[in-house]
Amino acid sequence: MINTTASKKFPQKFVYSFGAGSAEGSAKMKESLGGKGANLAEMSSLGINVPPGFTIATEICGIFYANGKKLPEEVKRDALKALQNIETNIGKKFGDHNNPLLVSVRSGARASMPGMMDTILNLGLNDTTVEGLAKKSGNSRFAWDSYRRFIQMYSDVVMGMNGSLLEVALEDMKDHKGYKLDTDLTDADLKELVKEFKKKVVEETGKKFPEDPFEQLWGAISSVFESWNTPRAITYRNLHEIPEWWGTAVNVQSMVFGNMGDDSATGVAFTRNPSNGEKYFYGEFLINAQGEDVVAGIRTPQPISKKAAESSSLKSMEEILPKAYEELVSIYKKLEAHYRDMQDIEFTVEQGRLWMLQTRTGKRTSAAALKIACDMIDEKLITEQEALLRIDPSGLDQLLHPTIDPQAKKTLLAKGLPASPGAACGRIVFSSEDAEDWKGRGEKVILVRVETSPEDITGMIAAQGILTTRGGMTSHAAVVARGMGKCCVAGCGEIEVDYKREELRVSSYSLRKGDVITLDGSTGEVFLGEVKTVDPRLDETFDRIMKLADANRRLKIRTNADNPRDAKIARQFGAEGIGLCRTEHMFFDADRIDVVRKMIIADSTAEREQALDQLLPFQRQDFIGIFKEMQGLPVTIRLLDPPLHEFLPHTDEEIEELSRRIAVPVEKLRSKVKSLHEFNPMLGHRGCRLAITFPEIYNMQARAIAEAAAEIVKGGQTLIPEIMIPIVATKKELSILRANVEATVRDVQKEKGVKFDFLIGTMIELPRAAIIADEIAECADFFSFGTNDLTQTALGISRDDAGRFLGAYVSQGILERDPFVSIDRQGVGELVKMGTERGRKTKSDLKVGVCGEHGGDPNSIEFFNSVGLDYVSCSPYRVPIARLAAARANILSRGASKK
Amino acid sequence: MINTTASKKFPQKFVYSFGAGSAEGSAKMKESLGGKGANLAEMSSLGINVPPGFTIATEICGIFYANGKKLPEEVKRDALKALQNIETNIGKKFGDHNNPLLVSVRSGARASMPGMMDTILNLGLNDTTVEGLAKKSGNSRFAWDSYRRFIQMYSDVVMGMNGSLLEVALEDMKDHKGYKLDTDLTDADLKELVKEFKKKVVEETGKKFPEDPFEQLWGAISSVFESWNTPRAITYRNLHEIPEWWGTAVNVQSMVFGNMGDDSATGVAFTRNPSNGEKYFYGEFLINAQGEDVVAGIRTPQPISKKAAESSSLKSMEEILPKAYEELVSIYKKLEAHYRDMQDIEFTVEQGRLWMLQTRTGKRTSAAALKIACDMIDEKLITEQEALLRIDPSGLDQLLHPTIDPQAKKTLLAKGLPASPGAACGRIVFSSEDAEDWKGRGEKVILVRVETSPEDITGMIAAQGILTTRGGMTSHAAVVARGMGKCCVAGCGEIEVDYKREELRVSSYSLRKGDVITLDGSTGEVFLGEVKTVDPRLDETFDRIMKLADANRRLKIRTNADNPRDAKIARQFGAEGIGLCRTEHMFFDADRIDVVRKMIIADSTAEREQALDQLLPFQRQDFIGIFKEMQGLPVTIRLLDPPLHEFLPHTDEEIEELSRRIAVPVEKLRSKVKSLHEFNPMLGHRGCRLAITFPEIYNMQARAIAEAAAEIVKGGQTLIPEIMIPIVATKKELSILRANVEATVRDVQKEKGVKFDFLIGTMIELPRAAIIADEIAECADFFSFGTNDLTQTALGISRDDAGRFLGAYVSQGILERDPFVSIDRQGVGELVKMGTERGRKTKSDLKVGVCGEHGGDPNSIEFFNSVGLDYVSCSPYRVPIARLAAARANILSRGASKK
Repeated sequence: MINTTASKKFPQKFVYSFGAGSAEGSAKMKESLGGKGANLAEMSSLGINVPPGFTIATEICGIFYANGKKLPEEVKRDALKALQNIETNIGKKFGDHNNPLLVSVRSGARASMPGMMDTILNLGLNDTTVEGLAKKSGNSRFAWDSYRRFIQMYSDVVMGMNGSLLEVALEDMKDHKGYKLDTDLTDADLKELVKEFKKKVVEETGKKFPEDPFEQLWGAISSVFESWNTPRAITYRNLHEIPEWWGTAVNVQSMVFGNMGDDSATGVAFTRNPSNGEKYFYGEFLINAQGEDVVAGIRTPQPISKKAAESSSLKSMEEILPKAYEELVSIYKKLEAHYRDMQDIEFTVEQGRLWMLQTRTGKRTSAAALKIACDMIDEKLITEQEALLRIDPSGLDQLLHPTIDPQAKKTLLAKGLPASPGAACGRIVFSSEDAEDWKGRGEKVILVRVETSPEDITGMIAAQGILTTRGGMTSHAAVVARGMGKCCVAGCGEIEVDYKREELRVSSYSLRKGDVITLDGSTGEVFLGEVKTVDPRLDETFDRIMKLADANRRLKIRTNADNPRDAKIARQFGAEGIGLCRTEHMFFDADRIDVVRKMIIADSTAEREQALDQLLPFQRQDFIGIFKEMQGLPVTIRLLDPPLHEFLPHTDEEIEELSRRIAVPVEKLRSKVKSLHEFNPMLGHRGCRLAITFPEIYNMQARAIAEAAAEIVKGGQTLIPEIMIPIVATKKELSILRANVEATVRDVQKEKGVKFDFLIGTMIELPRAAIIADEIAECADFFSFGTNDLTQTALGISRDDAGRFLGAYVSQGILERDPFVSIDRQGVGELVKMGTERGRKTKSDLKVGVCGEHGGDPNSIEFFNSVGLDYVSCSPYRVPIARLAAARANILSRGASKK
Repeated sequence: MINTTASKKFPQKFVYSFGAGSAEGSAKMKESLGGKGANLAEMSSLGINVPPGFTIATEICGIFYANGKKLPEEVKRDALKALQNIETNIGKKFGDHNNPLLVSVRSGARASMPGMMDTILNLGLNDTTVEGLAKKSGNSRFAWDSYRRFIQMYSDVVMGMNGSLLEVALEDMKDHKGYKLDTDLTDADLKELVKEFKKKVVEETGKKFPEDPFEQLWGAISSVFESWNTPRAITYRNLHEIPEWWGTAVNVQSMVFGNMGDDSATGVAFTRNPSNGEKYFYGEFLINAQGEDVVAGIRTPQPISKKAAESSSLKSMEEILPKAYEELVSIYKKLEAHYRDMQDIEFTVEQGRLWMLQTRTGKRTSAAALKIACDMIDEKLITEQEALLRIDPSGLDQLLHPTIDPQAKKTLLAKGLPASPGAACGRIVFSSEDAEDWKGRGEKVILVRVETSPEDITGMIAAQGILTTRGGMTSHAAVVARGMGKCCVAGCGEIEVDYKREELRVSSYSLRKGDVITLDGSTGEVFLGEVKTVDPRLDETFDRIMKLADANRRLKIRTNADNPRDAKIARQFGAEGIGLCRTEHMFFDADRIDVVRKMIIADSTAEREQALDQLLPFQRQDFIGIFKEMQGLPVTIRLLDPPLHEFLPHTDEEIEELSRRIAVPVEKLRSKVKSLHEFNPMLGHRGCRLAITFPEIYNMQARAIAEAAAEIVKGGQTLIPEIMIPIVATKKELSILRANVEATVRDVQKEKGVKFDFLIGTMIELPRAAIIADEIAECADFFSFGTNDLTQTALGISRDDAGRFLGAYVSQGILERDPFVSIDRQGVGELVKMGTERGRKTKSDLKVGVCGEHGGDPNSIEFFNSVGLDYVSCSPYRVPIARLAAARANILSRGASKK
């Protein structure tokens, strides 16, 4: 329920009139008037012809609920006054027998919630006013048709009657009379139908259909307020993060009719093409129709302008209703110039006269958003900063990946999580080996796994896309796929995978290895067979916006990259360095994983060091490759992080195979696997804890980094490697390991006779580390917030296990968003803020960044900008998104600080 | 290395003289003088006969290290002045050929570190002074024996020579001469030996033994400073939490000799009996001996007083040296009255003259501590508050459990963690079933498991003690055993358990089911066979101290109890309520676990509710039992906390058995077990998260609590049940569940026609909850900090997995203490403080407690007192400890606030 006391004040004014060239409200008052009401008021004030009406403020919605779902008398009183205003303006009278005023009653929240709430049209009709309308309009059929429509709508929406019952009565009559279309019904038929309808209403609801127009009005207004809390409205609000307490306004407006003959029409239009952004008047209309007919799709709408008609066989409004069209063009230009953005408008022509019913900012594709933004800068309509604010950063994803052809026919098999965007099509395989084999044979494959582990990396690289049946948006498959810019649908629980039979089962389908499917990683959909995809195009508008973003941001953008390939992609997308290079992924390559395993099962330090010596040249080559690729940009390398058991095989079969390969008894391997087992690996023996107990591991890695750096520096390239130590919880961990790493790097510098600067810093990814950040900063040259693990520990939620309840948490509003996708500002954010402030209390110039998944999320980036981080680091394909998001955050915060 | 700049200032004074009735230092200056030096100064000032000497301050230790392990000239200068002082006082001269002054050089840190650092006696002897000593003492053998002892000690300690080489030379001479005892050596032999020793020293060290007494002195002083950093000293410091930067002082003191004939003697004594606290002079001495002989155990020491001689065949000092004894008695009385505490003293009688060598606060058993404290109150020597500060709360554990008879002979098998104190003896069994069976047959058993799970509860109850080979101080076995007050040795990794062969193997032993072992839960030791144990006795001094503690504490003490039995024990120990009643343990009883499982595998809400309906009467009875037992004291009941998979069987065999029992297909069970598997159960679907997805579980529990409360209240007992919701991270979780619980309780009240008050609160056990405690407090009637889980999440350490690195962390000083035993004040403590402050910002009278393991740890209790919690809750057997610790914390904090 709405909490009236906490969330809003009692409003000064309940009802706002508009129409006839003036209005009590304006476009700025969306909070009270809702989007529709505010824009109707604005258009009125601009002298645009709007059917007169009034808006009951959103604040009344809360009061309505607090008042036991009754309209307060004060509201009714003011509404009646406003109704008189309409009557005066339009020269009709509500409930008048001869010249009755009819009104529409519509919802209108701050944010658009299309179709989610209720609408009632033609209100004010009854058995006497219908005759007045017939007489006045000279169209008896029109009047009676309006009346039967009103009864249908009202009984459904306000009286709670099952709408299909009246629909059945209408169909029965058509059958009985042998009609096909509703328009075949004569005015006599309609009169009979109205009688029939009213009888049914009494039978079903036990109440008479209200004849009193005022009773109708209060009923309709109440119903619109009540429709704020229908299940579908609540679901929509949750989905779009619209707070419950906002409430809806109610708009009561004089009816105008586009269905009063061939000089009448109704239409919707955009001031520019919303799909590609081209600058011409774009839209559709229907002669002799009401608004709902345009949307309903029964008749094919006609194009608005000649330009829009080029690809159509139908005539345009420009040709059919030139006068109204001319007026409409002048209005759309006025509106676009006034709102300084592309508008989505609705209009009706009633017997030649143009009425504007709505204007709002038009939704557009990402490509269109870029084009419109650039054009409007050139037209000097908006500033560069405004242009950046017009583009949704997340939408850029659409532009960076192949997408499903919107025209294509498709059979949906299942829907999982949209884990990594783009589209992919290929033959299904169930193992990484098959993925590589089939790829080798020139096949495109989709790797299907219950879930992926680091050992699946090669298969993931070989595949076009990845489909998993378990795990969330931040599962291994999702994280790695996003890093690769590869399409992934994760956690698709409907699908059952049978590894043994190499089968995938979902509903009635059963697919075998080699069958073709298509994934849409942007929606999470899985389709049967091949669905056509469209390749991405990055044009000059994209480059222009990116450059503008760079000029307007404060945050640096780095990337998470573990190999030269990813590093290259990220640099092409504008990354200014590597914020997170995970060294463990390098351990999984086929030519070294067994050496890693030897290191792990070593019984002594000497034995372990021997294996590490073998790993050293591999690691050195890894780093040389990455350093070269980054051409002097900063590279932050995180030393080994995961617990050692992640590198060991687990099934008996794998253990036996490994035993043969490395000539270590099965029993020894098994007992090592068992002894390394952890109950909660996330909170286990990992990261710097490994290095405290086995210092030689980090020493080898530090040596590999230093030797690589020495080679690069000798080659004449500048380089300042940044070595990062994970899972630090105490200052002493860092001081011990820092000393070891420092000594190793200095040793190498002496051996190689090369000097270079290097930094040693730490991840802040445990609550304790954030709390004692002032102490830790004494030993750290930089901080990087690992917000993935910080979220897991601060909230006590394992991201691998959260699937069973996180959905319920978001849908019940317990968490605003998935905290692994968008940072939990209140909890985790507070720790980031605390860690930054305390760290900088010790070192005012401490470099602070973030390298969790949140580094690529626009909402999180806004937060990171606000707490003064120096950079964010994200997966290569999110770099452009981050650049734009950082610019927007910076522009918005400067705006906020000016206020 | 010692950080001289950060930790200490450059001292004003380097050297402090004492002796002959005056001193430059005092007992208050332990920080600079160390314990020994401070007390020597104090005794001097009291006019007690102390061999004159001087103390080089602890601050010089840091300077010594900073100065490249060299004594600064200023220090030498002042030491020489102080040496002249000694010469004047004693009438001997250092290095003098006729009447040489000999000195001892001893360490002395702030805290006693017995035997950990170096000592040199008889310093100042060389080839000429030895003759002077011989002449002056009239005892040539004594002089040469002193000389050879000095060479042995000095060459070992200062010159770093392997001490056994000289020992061998001595033994060789004895063999050669046909002697048995050292005392058989004549002065001629000793002269020869000294020559031989000096030769060996040159051979081994390449250096001549220093003849110059001053060179000897500086060498000895430096060596004592260096001995601050020997491995054994470092280990001891880590063990006893003594900071490295404290450093040691060096005491240089004129030698006195208890081995100059039958009118000489040396001894140690306590002013009261340290083992039972009785008030009489207690100690031992040896005629014609040096201090080391008393400790060495070669000769049997004689009792000091007649009273102490009652149980001895030997004569007392009171009889043999009545004059010196009389003087000693007057001194010990003076010292005890002066220090107002029981003293541990050392003395030497040199040719009839009594010299005091040391006084310090005497260590005592817990029983003695209680007795002495009570007696001293009665003697008006100390206040009640001081008495409480004299007793170590942790020591009370000794009094509450049976203990190993200290006299008993025993064979140590292995050593694990002292997980739950007390001693237990019985036949080993390897399963809970066997434990119950054998118990039924009248056998005493020890349950041996790799680790325990909640299903082992019945076996643990049946057993005398529990031994596990895996898991730490806070593993399931440890926590549950402490809760039961039952002896437990945990994580005894040396022992290998073979369930199949029902065997336990350790070193060369192999024990079968039925073999007898004895556990010492206070030390972690496991002994072969039966070792005699001693039962605890709680006498009136215990009661008196407890009452005093109650009168002096602010914190309330509650207990963690899940059943009437534990509740009763805790109440007898003085618990003022239950702070944590875990409902999940109730689910494991044989007669209900299968119903719980049916609930878990239910496919629908209806099916689940059906199983819950069956559980309801069981839970209601549980609560009635506990409420009755607590007789109106507050009872906090935590609703279900662990993830559901904890209740399911895991092995194929168990699953098949369950399948037969509850008639559910094996496949269904297996797939349920699989689907509920979690990667990190600690961070999984548990606590309130279960209730968000399955509200019916908490609703059943709330109903059971309410129905139980209704019955109790109808019976005339007052009761305010406190219902606690675990793992809350957001306000909304609590508000949703609070509403459900509240509605259920109100329903029951209506049904039963009974009214009673009840509280609904939450655990604060996640960092996020502490951060947003102000918001959460809006929905909570109370907070209880779950510091176990808060420690796991704040530090990112799983307590079940920490065993592999926590030891290294504590020994390397990365963590001061095991954070699961004693609260990490800096990290977790900060969250407790933050949570309390923020919670009370919303509700100033919010009741706040703690129910983690830390609630029974004295150091943690001090912290909880300081941040203003209302109560701590601990296992029943720790209630007395907590009562005393709370009083001490309160007294200390009042003292601190007065300053």
